[in-house]
Amino acid sequence: MAHIPLLEGLPGIRGPMVFSPETTKPLCDLAEVLLTGPHTLTLAEREMIATYVSSENDCYYCQHCHGAIAAQHLGGGEADYEFITKLKRDFESTNLSAKMKALLNIAGKVQKSGKQVTAADVDRARGEGTTDREIHDTVLIAAAFCMFNRYVDGLATWQPQNPEIYREIGKQTAQLGYVGRDYKKPLAAVASKQTG
Amino acid sequence: MAHIPLLEGLPGIRGPMVFSPETTKPLCDLAEVLLTGPHTLTLAEREMIATYVSSENDCYYCQHCHGAIAAQHLGGGEADYEFITKLKRDFESTNLSAKMKALLNIAGKVQKSGKQVTAADVDRARGEGTTDREIHDTVLIAAAFCMFNRYVDGLATWQPQNPEIYREIGKQTAQLGYVGRDYKKPLAAVASKQTG
Repeated sequence: MAHIPLLEGLPGIRGPMVFSPETTKPLCDLAEVLLTGPHTLTLAEREMIATYVSSENDCYYCQHCHGAIAAQHLGGGEADYEFITKLKRDFESTNLSAKMKALLNIAGKVQKSGKQVTAADVDRARGEGTTDREIHDTVLIAAAFCMFNRYVDGLATWQPQNPEIYREIGKQTAQLGYVGRDYKKPLAAVASKQTG
Repeated sequence: MAHIPLLEGLPGIRGPMVFSPETTKPLCDLAEVLLTGPHTLTLAEREMIATYVSSENDCYYCQHCHGAIAAQHLGGGEADYEFITKLKRDFESTNLSAKMKALLNIAGKVQKSGKQVTAADVDRARGEGTTDREIHDTVLIAAAFCMFNRYVDGLATWQPQNPEIYREIGKQTAQLGYVGRDYKKPLAAVASKQTG
C-alpha cells in the first residue's frame, strides 16, 4: 500500500502525478526537454540512460517503463526488449557504440554520487567524440532519474509486474512524449485480468 | 575545473543553468513550486529539508546555499546560521518540532533510497499530525535534491568556500524566489577578494 492515498489503478509515478498536478507540470516539462527534444543522442539512447540508472537504483516501475520506451524507439520487437534487458545487466558486453558505453559509465557514477564522476570518465567519453552538451545531458538525465526513482519508491507506489502494462506505457510515451500523453487515463493492460 | 566549459565566476548550479537554459526552466519551476509555494510547512522548514539532504549527499554548494536561504527565512541572524549547522550534524538533538524531526527522518531515508522509507517512518510522522501533502512534498523535495546535488557535483562545478557568497545567495533567493532571482548576474561576494 502506498504511503499516502493515491488513485487506484495508476501504476508508479502516475498516482503521485495525479495527487500533485502543480509539481507534475515541471516534472513532465523536464522529462520532455531532456528525453524528447532535438538532440545528437537518439531518443532510444537517452531512454537507455534513464533505464540503466533506474535499474541501478532498483526502481521496478521506472526501469520497466523507460526500458519499454527505449525498446519502442529501437523498433519495438522482441529483440529490442531483450537488448534492453542485456544492457541493464552488463552494458559493456553489448554491441552499443563505444561512445554510449562511455556515457553509461558516467551515468552509473552519477547514480552513486556526482562526486564519483572523474576527469578520466569524461576523457574516455571525449575520446569517443562526445560533446559538452552530451556530457551535460547525460549527467542531468542520470541525476533526474535519481529523483524520479526516489519519488516512485519513496511513496511506495503500486508497481505491478505484468509486462503488458509497461509495453503499453512504452508505446504511448514513445508516440506522444511526456507532456502529450494522458497519464490519468486508465491503461488497458491494468483493466485486463493479467494484472499482478 | 568543471567537466564542461562553464561561464566563469558563477558558483555551483549557476554555471550549468546558464549553459542549458532549456532545462533550467523546468528545474527552476520545480524549485519554485516545491520551496516557495503556499504550504503548511514554512519556507524555512522546506529549505531545512533541502539543506539536510544536500548535507547527507555531501554537496558543498547546495547545503550552504539552502542552509543560508533557510537561515534567512528564520531571521538571518548568527544564531539562525548556527542552528542550521547543528541541524545538519544531528537534527534529532535540536529544538525542532517533533513533526519536523519525523519529516527529516523520512528525507534522510529518501536520500539513501526511496525503498528505505518504511510504514513506521510514515506512522511516526502521522502521529505528529503530518498531512498527506506534507509527506508527499517531503519525499519529493528530498528526491529533487538528490538530483540537484548530483547535477552540481557530477559536472564538477566551482564551489567556492567563502561564506559571504552563500549569504548573498541566501538573501537573494529568500527575497526573490527561484524564478524571480537573476542567477546570471555576478555575485558581489564573488567579485570581492575573499573568494576562495
